[in-house]
Amino acid sequence: MRLAIPLPGNEGFADALAASGDVELGGLEARRFPDGESYIRLDCDVEGRDVDFVCTLADPDPGFLRLIFAADAARDLGARSVNLIAPYLAYMRQDKRFRPGGAVSSFSFARLLSSSFDHLVTVDPHLHRHKSLDALYTLSSMTLHAAPLLAEWVGREIPAPLLIGPDAESEQWVSESARAINAPYAVLSKTRLGDRRVEITVPELSAWAGRQPVLIDDIASSGRTLIEAARQLCAAGFAPPVCAVVHALFAGDAYATLGEVSADIISTDSVPHPTNRVTLAPLIARALADLGAAR
Amino acid sequence: MRLAIPLPGNEGFADALAASGDVELGGLEARRFPDGESYIRLDCDVEGRDVDFVCTLADPDPGFLRLIFAADAARDLGARSVNLIAPYLAYMRQDKRFRPGGAVSSFSFARLLSSSFDHLVTVDPHLHRHKSLDALYTLSSMTLHAAPLLAEWVGREIPAPLLIGPDAESEQWVSESARAINAPYAVLSKTRLGDRRVEITVPELSAWAGRQPVLIDDIASSGRTLIEAARQLCAAGFAPPVCAVVHALFAGDAYATLGEVSADIISTDSVPHPTNRVTLAPLIARALADLGAAR
Repeated sequence: MRLAIPLPGNEGFADALAASGDVELGGLEARRFPDGESYIRLDCDVEGRDVDFVCTLADPDPGFLRLIFAADAARDLGARSVNLIAPYLAYMRQDKRFRPGGAVSSFSFARLLSSSFDHLVTVDPHLHRHKSLDALYTLSSMTLHAAPLLAEWVGREIPAPLLIGPDAESEQWVSESARAINAPYAVLSKTRLGDRRVEITVPELSAWAGRQPVLIDDIASSGRTLIEAARQLCAAGFAPPVCAVVHALFAGDAYATLGEVSADIISTDSVPHPTNRVTLAPLIARALADLGAAR
Repeated sequence: MRLAIPLPGNEGFADALAASGDVELGGLEARRFPDGESYIRLDCDVEGRDVDFVCTLADPDPGFLRLIFAADAARDLGARSVNLIAPYLAYMRQDKRFRPGGAVSSFSFARLLSSSFDHLVTVDPHLHRHKSLDALYTLSSMTLHAAPLLAEWVGREIPAPLLIGPDAESEQWVSESARAINAPYAVLSKTRLGDRRVEITVPELSAWAGRQPVLIDDIASSGRTLIEAARQLCAAGFAPPVCAVVHALFAGDAYATLGEVSADIISTDSVPHPTNRVTLAPLIARALADLGAAR
């Protein structure tokens, strides 16, 4: 049986994982010394075990070192494999040098994680210019997809939905969800003007008047894309949309502002947030079972 | 000429370095995305240069990733060498497994830095059970000592001083300082009872009655050692001591509380703090010149 150990803040997800599959829960002690340094102690026997550290990577900087300390400790103490279950994976944005001198943090982050873990299991990493995590990571990675779970929720909860992707990047993903529940879909056009500024254009959608728009996106960070899409949909005569996202980061006032222009907001539990309505635990538990069987 | 690039918060020390030696200053842009991820861009040409990132490592967790991103960017952009100037080095405490399951963070931290930098220049790392950084680090490290600089300050500023080390660990160090300025010294006995609790015993010191006690220590973190030593010296009939430390971490209320039982507190500028009165910049500038000459 695999051993899942949650880092601080991931206890709920680890509990759900243990309830969904053949996974034993382990604990660790994490605290800070008065000077800000991290202390980590594994509170379970890892020798000979496949150890899965559960740690979503939203706001990754403050907790990064203790995650590495935990992984190194498990390896040092004889774990058979040391793995990272990160329902949300960070540092997918700077995957090339956009300006002279720019750091390609996607590669650096991947290098550090690859030096510490054997396997990485994650959900819908925000891949742009690379087709798979293998272009960045040298560890063995398993990428899972939440679209079918969001589609299933929409099919169950929303009568007469119109699925909408906020930009071209999301087309394949929204079309897949729409097919799964036999619903129509559309894709908007986005131009990014800065970290927090985007421009959205809505195509001719009068054929779908009266349907409930459901905006689907992989990630809500500054939330500007979804907020602007919701505004433009209302301006085009639609009801306020339901928003469904995989990764509910919701930085700053994003959640409050999106709430003002949406009928409802739902998300998966890849990042703990009040909008979590779809759990990824069974999906990840199955992946871990496959990982065990493939050995 | 070497190129020194300060990480945020280290601009003052880098300026002092450039004023002390044959060092050119470079800049970088550091900011955070709304979701908390770090963005780093080198704002200078590093190709073919010996690049020295200046970054003290007090409270190391929040800024660790951006330091690695900067180092990787410099290497990627053709720097001849990528080096870390850390006047204060972190994670020297957990250098062995004290309890079952404990992470040996000294080794993990050294592993990550060693994978990113060629040379490390630091001052008085808090070595306990290992004789040198080479037992932890695989990069090439240069360890400098601030005791002569603190001794010089005491000799210049304090008439009739009695140098005092708060515990046995500091004996060699305090005796060296005392010899340098031809002053008497004594060493107290310390028992650590927890992160923030220590017990100090003062030996028979009546031969030095009337002298100004000067407590010398490498590091003031929770400050409990110095605070308790100052109290016990006062209880033994001495004037409130002057405290001189290399690394002024002063976590929580340590600075305020030590101020109540001391005549004065001074420190080096290894960690920016109001008590900084002795600069390490010339010492480090000379070390960098040696590093260049040894090439």
